[in-house]
Amino acid sequence: MAAEKTMEKIVALAKNRGFVYPGSDIYGGLANAWDYGPLGVELKNNVKKAWWRKFIQESPYNVGVDCAILMNPQVWVASGHVGGFSDPLIDCKDCKTRHRADKLIEDWNAENNIEFRVDGLKNEELMQYIKDKGVKCPGCGSANFTEIRKFNLMFKTFQGVTEDSKAEIFLRPETAQGIFVNFKNVQRTTRKKIPFGIGQIGKSFRNEITPGNFTFRTREFEQMELEFFCEPGKDLEWFKYWKDFCYNWLLSLNMTKENLKLRDHEKEELSHYSNATTDIEFLFPFGWGELWGIADRTDFDLKQHMTHAKDDLSYFDPTTNEKYVPYCIEPSLGADRVTLAFLCDAYNEEEVSEGDVRTVLRFHPAIAPVKIAVLPLSKKLGEEAEKVYHMLTKTFYCEYDETGSIGKRYRRQDEIGTPYCITFDFDSLEDKSVTIRERDTMQQVRIKIDELAAYFENKFEF
Amino acid sequence: MAAEKTMEKIVALAKNRGFVYPGSDIYGGLANAWDYGPLGVELKNNVKKAWWRKFIQESPYNVGVDCAILMNPQVWVASGHVGGFSDPLIDCKDCKTRHRADKLIEDWNAENNIEFRVDGLKNEELMQYIKDKGVKCPGCGSANFTEIRKFNLMFKTFQGVTEDSKAEIFLRPETAQGIFVNFKNVQRTTRKKIPFGIGQIGKSFRNEITPGNFTFRTREFEQMELEFFCEPGKDLEWFKYWKDFCYNWLLSLNMTKENLKLRDHEKEELSHYSNATTDIEFLFPFGWGELWGIADRTDFDLKQHMTHAKDDLSYFDPTTNEKYVPYCIEPSLGADRVTLAFLCDAYNEEEVSEGDVRTVLRFHPAIAPVKIAVLPLSKKLGEEAEKVYHMLTKTFYCEYDETGSIGKRYRRQDEIGTPYCITFDFDSLEDKSVTIRERDTMQQVRIKIDELAAYFENKFEF
Repeated sequence: MAAEKTMEKIVALAKNRGFVYPGSDIYGGLANAWDYGPLGVELKNNVKKAWWRKFIQESPYNVGVDCAILMNPQVWVASGHVGGFSDPLIDCKDCKTRHRADKLIEDWNAENNIEFRVDGLKNEELMQYIKDKGVKCPGCGSANFTEIRKFNLMFKTFQGVTEDSKAEIFLRPETAQGIFVNFKNVQRTTRKKIPFGIGQIGKSFRNEITPGNFTFRTREFEQMELEFFCEPGKDLEWFKYWKDFCYNWLLSLNMTKENLKLRDHEKEELSHYSNATTDIEFLFPFGWGELWGIADRTDFDLKQHMTHAKDDLSYFDPTTNEKYVPYCIEPSLGADRVTLAFLCDAYNEEEVSEGDVRTVLRFHPAIAPVKIAVLPLSKKLGEEAEKVYHMLTKTFYCEYDETGSIGKRYRRQDEIGTPYCITFDFDSLEDKSVTIRERDTMQQVRIKIDELAAYFENKFEF
Repeated sequence: MAAEKTMEKIVALAKNRGFVYPGSDIYGGLANAWDYGPLGVELKNNVKKAWWRKFIQESPYNVGVDCAILMNPQVWVASGHVGGFSDPLIDCKDCKTRHRADKLIEDWNAENNIEFRVDGLKNEELMQYIKDKGVKCPGCGSANFTEIRKFNLMFKTFQGVTEDSKAEIFLRPETAQGIFVNFKNVQRTTRKKIPFGIGQIGKSFRNEITPGNFTFRTREFEQMELEFFCEPGKDLEWFKYWKDFCYNWLLSLNMTKENLKLRDHEKEELSHYSNATTDIEFLFPFGWGELWGIADRTDFDLKQHMTHAKDDLSYFDPTTNEKYVPYCIEPSLGADRVTLAFLCDAYNEEEVSEGDVRTVLRFHPAIAPVKIAVLPLSKKLGEEAEKVYHMLTKTFYCEYDETGSIGKRYRRQDEIGTPYCITFDFDSLEDKSVTIRERDTMQQVRIKIDELAAYFENKFEF
């Protein structure tokens, strides 16, 4: 029987092995901020590289950009974030705790086994529901709430040397707008024809009222977004294309099919401008959570910017001689979230032999932080074993570990998901060969040192 | 005779070919904010990868981290940024222009051929100098200035749901402190022994009074920092090691030696805690500019955090049984700056034949944004040529271009620094071969398609 997979175990492993530490740790942290340690940064970078490779490098359609976090504030007026990007804030008058009204209802419903979706409800409707159902404060149990107030989620700061409102700017709440405002620049300079897409990886910031669940919801987070521009009328076709593409990307990196769910938004749940939206959800140890939002946003964003920037962002199609504002498909993925999903999915405790349990992260080799560990059987072999290590680091992120019994060292590598361990033993000096032990099967093979490059050549593909 | 290399030409090329666009362009921009376009993001990512590879992946000493931009504000008290990270701000009372007092003096001195370094001067000394020399306002020519005021360069924002001062936090002004606060976490979880280093690539923010010179000085910028911890007394040895290492990294990526200068700080210029500091400067078209600061920071930073966090950050050396606070060498490089330096260094206009000038970016192949361009001689060859393109994109960022004469297409690729162009012609269908044209020599070779992988194998190494 498989041991229970809990967030406590995963958070502890993450902290103890250097995947993720609490942010500003020695100062008692900062509300749900996290720092990636030596293994975490490799894991997350590998996930980002895997996205870039499939969505940008190998795609005949897409190119990348990297836009500034600080943008002209008019961008956020046009996008609707200044007016409408807010959470419904509600306070308990008795215990003074602060809540998101929709979350309050969701948690209350979950506790009372009530099936009801709050998405898309207006603040008045949320308030009515709280009153009708007698939703109680999770802090003190009373039902004495303030009215719901809108709380804008954008972080604001001041640029320049005065703090008057003219210099008030925002930390971007999404990477998407950097792409929309550059649509014309990119199209002009790449001479791309519709359909084509523009992708971006970068930090965004949202002043969430209730961040939580480790790195699942944080105020500072990284996004991997694609905006794919197509002809109006062909949008649903491309929506399906990218939905499948995203889902297959997850599977190609060995994410467990049973832990994934595609949830199509119902008509009434859709934003007014959206023709279709699907969430890819992942089964975290704390429950199902949204991983990837794929939305057909029609021409909403470009048209907003045409109005506010008084610029023409329409596209002239040289084959049909028609001019139109492209429709846009947006697959938007949280880099921290999907990294956490890969970590949770990979986590396993398995009984190797009776009473002997190993913890193993079954990462796809392409995203495993350490690709190969080089383990000299004795410190006396250091000089020669290090040569193998240095040769391999030219291509792979490797570890060199000379401490403890070989069995212990294998287990340490299993626990961080290293797919291959190379043992350099006394025979290696003579036969110029080493033993490679594979993480999942624990099988061993003997390989000539000068054949290692060939052996590993396609092992990290996906 | 080589044509003059100017910032105007480089900025224009950057904008027209999709390296760098003005940020929030359609809204008239945002004071000196820039967005990387499709080629710029590849170039900058390649530079970052080249740094990570040599400073982290291949280094037996170093590991990486990726810390949050938002940190506990106490970090910036300990680091000295809350108290002392400010620019000397001065206003002209007549024309109301605002200046950095040190810059004002520097520019005045340059204009009047006065050799004098303002680094390290106190505000009173700067003021005295301005009065003594009768420094004039560059805006209106008068000498009617306000007193100098300290202007803190940290961007501040508010986290959480209230805007009282308790929730006031800062955007990090440097990546270094994320490393220092994690020193113990990293040492514990990696079991690294001194000497070892921790590197980080990430965004930092400084509310500069006078940003400028394209991407050279921007308020939002990316850093590549290493903090290397060593035994006290061995610091100057390691300082030299990393100074050489940094310099050689630049040369290994073909940066022109004559455009580089190492400037050792004089005793009086050094921070009070620093044992040695060297700047690597690059000759931009606008003059010499700092690229890389390499500093021996002694145990200053760790000790500051020991005091403020009331935590023990000393290291117990298992070989000598001694306990000490490590000394730290910090090579700190601006990712945007060094990317700009590579771009400026690569820019060339050369006469190919009489009256025929080509613009060529002579990037080292490792950092060139497009590695290989696939050019079918005719659109009829598209189907087969695309197969070559798709095969190569599995490994390299490539472009596919089928428009215009082959000569024009070569020039377009030269202008963005593509080291190799592959021409697929009608013979290619028969002999299963293509022509490879090399950017710098413009030499051509005929190669079998199934030998392309072998041909390119080591072409992008450095």
